[in-house]
Amino acid sequence: MCGVVGIYSHDELITSRLTFYALYSLQHRGQESAGISVFGDYIHIHKGMGLVNEVFNEKKLNEMRGKVAVGHVRYSTTGESKIENAQPLLAKTKKGALAIAHNGNIVNYHELRSKLENKGSAFITDSDTEVIAKILSKELLKNDIADSLKNLTEMLRGSYTLVMALNDTLIGFRDPLGFKPLIVGEGDFGYVIASESCALDALGARIIRDVSPGEAVIIREGEIDFVRIANSKRKAHCVFEYIYFARPDSVIDGRCVYDVRHKIGEILAKESPVDADIVSPIPDSGTTSAIGFSKASGIEYLEALIKNRYVGRTFILPEQNARELSVQIKINVVKSNVQGKRVVLVDDSIVRGTTSRKIVDMVRMAGAKEIHFRVGSPPIISPMLLRNRYVNEGRAYSIK
Amino acid sequence: MCGVVGIYSHDELITSRLTFYALYSLQHRGQESAGISVFGDYIHIHKGMGLVNEVFNEKKLNEMRGKVAVGHVRYSTTGESKIENAQPLLAKTKKGALAIAHNGNIVNYHELRSKLENKGSAFITDSDTEVIAKILSKELLKNDIADSLKNLTEMLRGSYTLVMALNDTLIGFRDPLGFKPLIVGEGDFGYVIASESCALDALGARIIRDVSPGEAVIIREGEIDFVRIANSKRKAHCVFEYIYFARPDSVIDGRCVYDVRHKIGEILAKESPVDADIVSPIPDSGTTSAIGFSKASGIEYLEALIKNRYVGRTFILPEQNARELSVQIKINVVKSNVQGKRVVLVDDSIVRGTTSRKIVDMVRMAGAKEIHFRVGSPPIISPMLLRNRYVNEGRAYSIK
Amino acid sequence: MCGVVGIYSHDELITSRLTFYALYSLQHRGQESAGISVFGDYIHIHKGMGLVNEVFNEKKLNEMRGKVAVGHVRYSTTGESKIENAQPLLAKTKKGALAIAHNGNIVNYHELRSKLENKGSAFITDSDTEVIAKILSKELLKNDIADSLKNLTEMLRGSYTLVMALNDTLIGFRDPLGFKPLIVGEGDFGYVIASESCALDALGARIIRDVSPGEAVIIREGEIDFVRIANSKRKAHCVFEYIYFARPDSVIDGRCVYDVRHKIGEILAKESPVDADIVSPIPDSGTTSAIGFSKASGIEYLEALIKNRYVGRTFILPEQNARELSVQIKINVVKSNVQGKRVVLVDDSIVRGTTSRKIVDMVRMAGAKEIHFRVGSPPIISPMLLRNRYVNEGRAYSIK
Amino acid sequence: MCGVVGIYSHDELITSRLTFYALYSLQHRGQESAGISVFGDYIHIHKGMGLVNEVFNEKKLNEMRGKVAVGHVRYSTTGESKIENAQPLLAKTKKGALAIAHNGNIVNYHELRSKLENKGSAFITDSDTEVIAKILSKELLKNDIADSLKNLTEMLRGSYTLVMALNDTLIGFRDPLGFKPLIVGEGDFGYVIASESCALDALGARIIRDVSPGEAVIIREGEIDFVRIANSKRKAHCVFEYIYFARPDSVIDGRCVYDVRHKIGEILAKESPVDADIVSPIPDSGTTSAIGFSKASGIEYLEALIKNRYVGRTFILPEQNARELSVQIKINVVKSNVQGKRVVLVDDSIVRGTTSRKIVDMVRMAGAKEIHFRVGSPPIISPMLLRNRYVNEGRAYSIK
Repeated sequence: MCGVVGIYSHDELITSRLTFYALYSLQHRGQESAGISVFGDYIHIHKGMGLVNEVFNEKKLNEMRGKVAVGHVRYSTTGESKIENAQPLLAKTKKGALAIAHNGNIVNYHELRSKLENKGSAFITDSDTEVIAKILSKELLKNDIADSLKNLTEMLRGSYTLVMALNDTLIGFRDPLGFKPLIVGEGDFGYVIASESCALDALGARIIRDVSPGEAVIIREGEIDFVRIANSKRKAHCVFEYIYFARPDSVIDGRCVYDVRHKIGEILAKESPVDADIVSPIPDSGTTSAIGFSKASGIEYLEALIKNRYVGRTFILPEQNARELSVQIKINVVKSNVQGKRVVLVDDSIVRGTTSRKIVDMVRMAGAKEIHFRVGSPPIISPMLLRNRYVNEGRAYSIK
Repeated sequence: MCGVVGIYSHDELITSRLTFYALYSLQHRGQESAGISVFGDYIHIHKGMGLVNEVFNEKKLNEMRGKVAVGHVRYSTTGESKIENAQPLLAKTKKGALAIAHNGNIVNYHELRSKLENKGSAFITDSDTEVIAKILSKELLKNDIADSLKNLTEMLRGSYTLVMALNDTLIGFRDPLGFKPLIVGEGDFGYVIASESCALDALGARIIRDVSPGEAVIIREGEIDFVRIANSKRKAHCVFEYIYFARPDSVIDGRCVYDVRHKIGEILAKESPVDADIVSPIPDSGTTSAIGFSKASGIEYLEALIKNRYVGRTFILPEQNARELSVQIKINVVKSNVQGKRVVLVDDSIVRGTTSRKIVDMVRMAGAKEIHFRVGSPPIISPMLLRNRYVNEGRAYSIK
Repeated sequence: MCGVVGIYSHDELITSRLTFYALYSLQHRGQESAGISVFGDYIHIHKGMGLVNEVFNEKKLNEMRGKVAVGHVRYSTTGESKIENAQPLLAKTKKGALAIAHNGNIVNYHELRSKLENKGSAFITDSDTEVIAKILSKELLKNDIADSLKNLTEMLRGSYTLVMALNDTLIGFRDPLGFKPLIVGEGDFGYVIASESCALDALGARIIRDVSPGEAVIIREGEIDFVRIANSKRKAHCVFEYIYFARPDSVIDGRCVYDVRHKIGEILAKESPVDADIVSPIPDSGTTSAIGFSKASGIEYLEALIKNRYVGRTFILPEQNARELSVQIKINVVKSNVQGKRVVLVDDSIVRGTTSRKIVDMVRMAGAKEIHFRVGSPPIISPMLLRNRYVNEGRAYSIK
Repeated sequence: MCGVVGIYSHDELITSRLTFYALYSLQHRGQESAGISVFGDYIHIHKGMGLVNEVFNEKKLNEMRGKVAVGHVRYSTTGESKIENAQPLLAKTKKGALAIAHNGNIVNYHELRSKLENKGSAFITDSDTEVIAKILSKELLKNDIADSLKNLTEMLRGSYTLVMALNDTLIGFRDPLGFKPLIVGEGDFGYVIASESCALDALGARIIRDVSPGEAVIIREGEIDFVRIANSKRKAHCVFEYIYFARPDSVIDGRCVYDVRHKIGEILAKESPVDADIVSPIPDSGTTSAIGFSKASGIEYLEALIKNRYVGRTFILPEQNARELSVQIKINVVKSNVQGKRVVLVDDSIVRGTTSRKIVDMVRMAGAKEIHFRVGSPPIISPMLLRNRYVNEGRAYSIK
């Protein structure tokens, strides 16, 4: 998962800042690195490891002037945390400078890379974005942007939502499967393309519409065009966007993420009903579904758990008992809310079984009479991790 | 507001780490500076600007060994942000090393300081804690700890909750007014004294009891004594601890902070009833009271606002329109939750009227039919800041 | 100017450290960025802005394990200081990983780049090293290393001393003009290739010999081969290496740099003899030539100027009077050494005329009766900068 | 050893910068910490660990405005490197703010501190400067500055050169033994007091005169007074100032440091004459004496050793062979200058015997026929460290 942004601004002095704020609102999509490339009289690029406001400062933003910008926040999936893999990738081609911000996963990356290497290509980065850059660089020699994207689509398999700048042109493109979201907005300043609508809200821009799967949006000299690149039979929405990737205040393909999560809570309440005294979220991920669960079940909504708001990324873990203490330091039980009560705990998923189990233990130790655990998504890891004493009933786990 | 911690640990290797975790759980009480002093074969002290886990690292914690420790997190009230004012203050006296962590406000500080200066005293810091150090240093020449604290109490006016180490002795003291909280706990490791019970939870310690106003707790060689220092007619609980200083999972003087905030929400619902479709908190400060309001009124609890979880302390503000954008970047409206609806917004207080007003504006722009604003505490700043168009009805503000 | 290093070590645990020390001894050749790539079970690369020991630490060096390594220190000639341009450049090709460290200047860089772009190539960096990587990547498809270098040589114009790793093979190459130096050494650990012999000394390695212009050295599995790649009629030694680039303790193409500079001083003394009381260097650049001048002329060697040893790269310049003060802060006159005396000042060159002029003014102000200024190299900038009052007599400037 | 500075400037905007430059020129006297206190409408103080230009920046200097300033650079003698011990020490007293910068060593510090503790004093720092602050604070209650200094002098034993600000008054004071230097200068801007005359040169100020042992200089509202505080029979010049503490371009108590070191070289040549081919310094400490040795003996001056100019404080030492390599990395032999020759090496002292021995070994390995080692000061450490094979002849050590 990553976050991508493209800005076309009439005023070249505010473009970098608009990109900054848009990335800032997409920070939940990636905290490993951040980067912005601005195309003006000069081609600017600045990338760094860390959060958006760690990588950029006033001085840097003021230096980067131009009407067109591309931004990216990266989430490390591989564990390899290197500045070389930060985006956007800036390539200089026969047809001009090309900045690419990519959200997705090219399934046939190694195959494509081998083909290019067999012809003598040298790869400078380990990122699949360089494959896209090399293919587009060749395609643009003889084709226009739309045809180049069409040919690219025929080569790539997987998901690839792209925001790109080619000289004075800003391009957004969503692959035919449409796995990763992309939305276009308009504000006083010009246009914005972004992974989620919350980035539009951050800029005070209104939604024009989602980019459809297989469609490109091309913005040049203040003119905006939606161009169909490839036919797309199905809309393979990434359900995980709704369940935990996206921000709840975003609207993706016409559906508000908050509504979806609230509804999941309602469904959980009907699917696996339970007699209980209170329903509480695992903060912050389970909040919306817990509210929905409470509404549908009529069980009182009360917070059993409080999160330490200052838990950061660089937290020092004790050498011994690390696993035990780490949860306790981040989350605490409000004892009087659970003592002698039957408690329903709701989360979005069981990404880390050990964390979930530890929280259940903490609530039990605090005096809860019964604990019922409900999760919005099917278990990703084996429910075995919840040990035998937890009864697995689909998305519901109970302990008495 | 500050946070104070004292640790007496049988195992001198884990003392610094226990203090670290306790301070970490009290981080909400102060983010300007953090410091720990550990008394062992050597007297260690380390202080720095910033969050607890920015100031300390594994190496530093490993170096600081001893059975007794004092910790402090500081909240800047004056705007003067200097390392010189970080605590604990470590003073060397005739009777040994004395580390002082102070939470409070000495009302007659300047008067006491003048008296000491008139006798030739030189002050190295600007902190009122140095006055306490100088008085105690003199008192301890001829008196024991309890009598020294008694004489100190006769000199000081204001609030002063202290955690101190004097050689191998750990001392906690709460002034007779008892404005600032102090609680004592016991764990496998030994004893902990802290501003709030959430620090005890973080260490897996159980509550022994609150230190009473005018009382000291003295821990030496594993023995714990509660000593009455001064009579105290009244318990001047700091209501702001319950309303917004303390963490909701803390129990202060026998009352759970969460319960108090929940009850405030219930009272608000009864005090100023309103016909509405949803009740929503201003995140995160209004959450608990909003849940209580929903319960008492029967109005559906639904989040109108989503906070950007990555808003940090070092956020870059745009030079122009700073005030307008700054809220928008931090908080966004879930439009579908408010469109065409009558919305009750609940917060703990109106510390910054401009923020509250901006949020109300955002919710209205998103399509709310009516907005009713309820706050847990009496307005600290003039409701004028909410402009005339907001009707002031005590702790309730409505706009249609 | 840059510094390049290649290491082949039998013990893969010490390779990164040997490279580090060799680069450290070549720090004078570039202070903008430093980088090391180590080829072992993994391909490691680490680059950063700043000095060698700012970029690397114990932890990083320990991680980088393998028998073959390439290192680079970069001197910014363009003023564009970007991490993207730091070297070595690591490229992944059909024939394996290729790390390139380059010292030189490709004269027909833009022409070569255009040709490649016309075929669809996309350039990720602004460095001429990427052109070399792309050409070699293609050549290696069908040719061995020697033939690939031969074909490369036919395409490139300018200077290009290269140290490269291709999988388990370490390669050094010096262009036919031989402008930039390259020397090979042998130690207990294995082999070292470096810009200057001082890097060999730092590792306790003995000189095997200089790489000749047009020659490559190829080290694979402990075997070393010198291979002639291109004929070379002339040896275009870069005179500036002797005059001020190289370290005086280095031996380049059989001549000790110290000797050359000492001899320059002797020649200056004979070329433009002068009656004077003392001869003094401009520290540190003029020291060796001043000693030679003293020997040949018989004039007493005495330091007129003392340099502040703590002048660093990040020095704060005052906003006003910057140019005036900046020299005075860095260098001071020993008044008693110049008062009433006829002083010969010797420097290696007049790179910055303003600095030289300011120093002459300072010595005059301190009471020198006559000042005679001698420089080792022809003036690079116009002697006009020395103003009319200084008489230009070739490499001699006098003022009375 | 430390460096102290006091500035009285008519223009309050440049005071902090003048202090900065003066400290910068005294950086050789201490690299552990740096601090400046400026007295204007506000009392400013800023201290930090590290070099002067690491601790201060433009922004910080611009904030600190006032006519009077005190500065300090600290050299750690104890190994305890703590910001708490950085100077100046700023104390608030009945008579106003008092900033103290101290260079020296109070012999009866512990005795004085005990006396004060016995009266109930609490010490906030571990520095002997706080004892001075406490004594002066009491003295100033009833005496003027001169009498207070007089009484101070009667209490203190040891060396204590002080530069202080008391409200609008700048004070310099040198203890009766006069161990540590202090000099006063005048420039267009106003007055400067400093440890060495090189600080005056850095500001373009001319020398007024040295402060005599037992004398104070008091500058108030542009008026300067020299006041005799205590009689002083002897001038116990610190010989180490001349031999290696001070900068060679400084003039201390009327003698130019360069001259003294040059003369030491001459004396060495006469004291222990030797037949040799070249005389070379150990860079940079032995340079001036080596030049003097060459002059007196007639032996050719030639550098046998070249120092890596980029060796910094944070150098990474290899875990194994650390002692061996560390010298080799910092200093290299110019082989052609020593091969087959009889070499005299001159240094200021043998502070670290292992370094000297290692250098001698390196020169021998490089082919020197004979090595004669001469040092300016009596050996501080046991010559045993030079092993038996080096013959100790007073300040001369020879090896054949």
